[in-house]
Amino acid sequence: MKFIKQKFSITFQYPVAFTEALFQPENPIFADLVHSDVKAAGRKVLFVLDEGLVEHHPGLFEQIKHYHSRFKDSFSLVPDPILLPGGEAAKNDRSHVHEILDAINKANMDRHSYVAVAGGGAVIDTAGYAASVAHRGIRLIRIPTTVLAQNDAAVGVKNGVNAYGKKNFLGTFDPPYAVLNDSQFLVSLDERDWRSGISEAVKVALIKDASFFDFLEDHAQKLNDRDMESMKTLIYRCAELHLEHISTSGDPFETGSSRPLDFGHWSAHKLEQLTRYDLRHGEAVAIGIALDTTYSYLAGMISKSDWQRIIKVLKAAGFLLYVPELKQKLDAPSDEDSIFNGLEEFREHLGGELTIMLLNGIGKGIEVHEVDYELYRKAADKIQKMESETVTSDR
Amino acid sequence: MKFIKQKFSITFQYPVAFTEALFQPENPIFADLVHSDVKAAGRKVLFVLDEGLVEHHPGLFEQIKHYHSRFKDSFSLVPDPILLPGGEAAKNDRSHVHEILDAINKANMDRHSYVAVAGGGAVIDTAGYAASVAHRGIRLIRIPTTVLAQNDAAVGVKNGVNAYGKKNFLGTFDPPYAVLNDSQFLVSLDERDWRSGISEAVKVALIKDASFFDFLEDHAQKLNDRDMESMKTLIYRCAELHLEHISTSGDPFETGSSRPLDFGHWSAHKLEQLTRYDLRHGEAVAIGIALDTTYSYLAGMISKSDWQRIIKVLKAAGFLLYVPELKQKLDAPSDEDSIFNGLEEFREHLGGELTIMLLNGIGKGIEVHEVDYELYRKAADKIQKMESETVTSDR
Repeated sequence: MKFIKQKFSITFQYPVAFTEALFQPENPIFADLVHSDVKAAGRKVLFVLDEGLVEHHPGLFEQIKHYHSRFKDSFSLVPDPILLPGGEAAKNDRSHVHEILDAINKANMDRHSYVAVAGGGAVIDTAGYAASVAHRGIRLIRIPTTVLAQNDAAVGVKNGVNAYGKKNFLGTFDPPYAVLNDSQFLVSLDERDWRSGISEAVKVALIKDASFFDFLEDHAQKLNDRDMESMKTLIYRCAELHLEHISTSGDPFETGSSRPLDFGHWSAHKLEQLTRYDLRHGEAVAIGIALDTTYSYLAGMISKSDWQRIIKVLKAAGFLLYVPELKQKLDAPSDEDSIFNGLEEFREHLGGELTIMLLNGIGKGIEVHEVDYELYRKAADKIQKMESETVTSDR
Repeated sequence: MKFIKQKFSITFQYPVAFTEALFQPENPIFADLVHSDVKAAGRKVLFVLDEGLVEHHPGLFEQIKHYHSRFKDSFSLVPDPILLPGGEAAKNDRSHVHEILDAINKANMDRHSYVAVAGGGAVIDTAGYAASVAHRGIRLIRIPTTVLAQNDAAVGVKNGVNAYGKKNFLGTFDPPYAVLNDSQFLVSLDERDWRSGISEAVKVALIKDASFFDFLEDHAQKLNDRDMESMKTLIYRCAELHLEHISTSGDPFETGSSRPLDFGHWSAHKLEQLTRYDLRHGEAVAIGIALDTTYSYLAGMISKSDWQRIIKVLKAAGFLLYVPELKQKLDAPSDEDSIFNGLEEFREHLGGELTIMLLNGIGKGIEVHEVDYELYRKAADKIQKMESETVTSDR
């Protein structure tokens, strides 16, 4: 028997830019980006826009058309943008992927064309998936407009939509061509979308960077009060840590069973599902962090004062840390409606052995492969009790 | 404005094995492969089988079940295989992709599970696409059973299906986990499937390796007479050159506009379409090679004797080098039914500037960005005339 061992490496690179007023004619960044590849001069750009974003910015596509008229030599604009419903709805309905593919086909776009998607994480994931499979990959420009998308969801290498009731059942690992973060989009966010992204920053600080946690602790109240400078610092550092992790983890396309950045996420994904997505991702992540932090404390892995500091930051940022679904069917771990079922779903998505992240201190994550259900029940009780006391003392 | 420049590399590797009697209990290669990843012990394997293959090997899945009973500790077998029609039909009907995704979902397969696909290139492309997007990538084991698939289609990094009447409109660049070439499957191939793969070998020899061309010249008659040893040598060297190209080209995922391995392919793709896939890919490639070789000769890029040698090898291997579609609407290049329209379709799929490969000698490809329609018309005439003379002299 003969063997050929095929082996090659590919270098992926893309800029994540932090800018303001992206489609003001004075801002050349978008035009320069699509123009920078000389051969791509005149390339087509198809816009996919989040309906939630357009509601707050009804003139957005007019503005883009105006921007285009100023930079006609840099790109050609596909006349009709695609509008997708915001939030998980975009990812739950496969017809949206087909809608984008139809438009790519109709415009005769090729692999040097661009899909530019502006909106929240779900819309970006959906458009990214469609772009990634069309002609085996059309260039994707992500313009995230929520905190969560700017600091986490949209800076990484994943695309995907839900199918068969499973989160991201269909997707690809395929880095974007560029990510353009415009802080002006944050001004019009409603309160929940403003807050939602803060939990991912707390998460990455807890597992990777104690001094960033100190920053969040010092600025939690300001963040809750919508101080833009604090938020810009949060987003930049959170995105930076996220990107650093991808490029230094040794497994950017997750061939192993571990996903360190998903601290607090096994229960968060399940809570989103159990609340039928009434909880937004970031809100669910805040609860997931509270749960795994409390578990880490009860297991003797972090001190009481560290536990208190973490809970306090989440509260100061305005998060609610308890929903009844957190204690649903805790006696029946394999029941689909039990939060514990999230562990198996989490394991299945990555494959191989169960691997979840817990805390060994602030700034120090630690992976474990087994959990103690009884201790998790105690942790859930503790959070419920704590939250009911907060509510009482708030009155 | 601030920038983060994200950059990381990923190393892809996979074995391409040349074996015999893959599912005989004495052959441990398949079991070792799925077992070699210790954590993956007991992983699930879903088989996707080409109906054309099963016709010739009706006991194949029984044999696989028997093999599994011998290697129960190495993998678990999804009880029902998926059967797909062979040839382009597999790629033209999107329901086949969904059928595979349904099965992956139903069997609760995860990213450490395997889709093992046995059959021709089209079935492999289809199953590969489904595996590539499920959970952002389930491991794919390709078991190509035609010459074309073993030496070309199935050894590379591409997956895909057709959509909107465009070849491979949907697809991914995603290397397989392994490729297992079993020469015994070649014995039962019908004559057309045996021959079809030879043209890709001629192609890669012409653009990369003059001494491999010498081999093909010496063995063309033997290959036509179904000599297995000659065919095994052809397949190994062709696969090797193909893999070498991918790993050394610097652009394995084709971000540029060039695709050197597609010598002769711009017209071949179009001829497949114009003949409604009556022509198999390899048969169309033989005609495409004849066309671009004749053009290279008429353009003064190769000598008359080189031109004659190349045509002679293709004829000796049994290929028909003219079909009426080759001269269809040559006066209307942009007409959808003109062979010349294949140039624009070829350009669109890759994007950017038109880049096709021509010959500068045997073993020496050269890329050009413009073509002379009139010279192509003459080349088509020349081939038609030559073939009609052959037919006459054959009588």
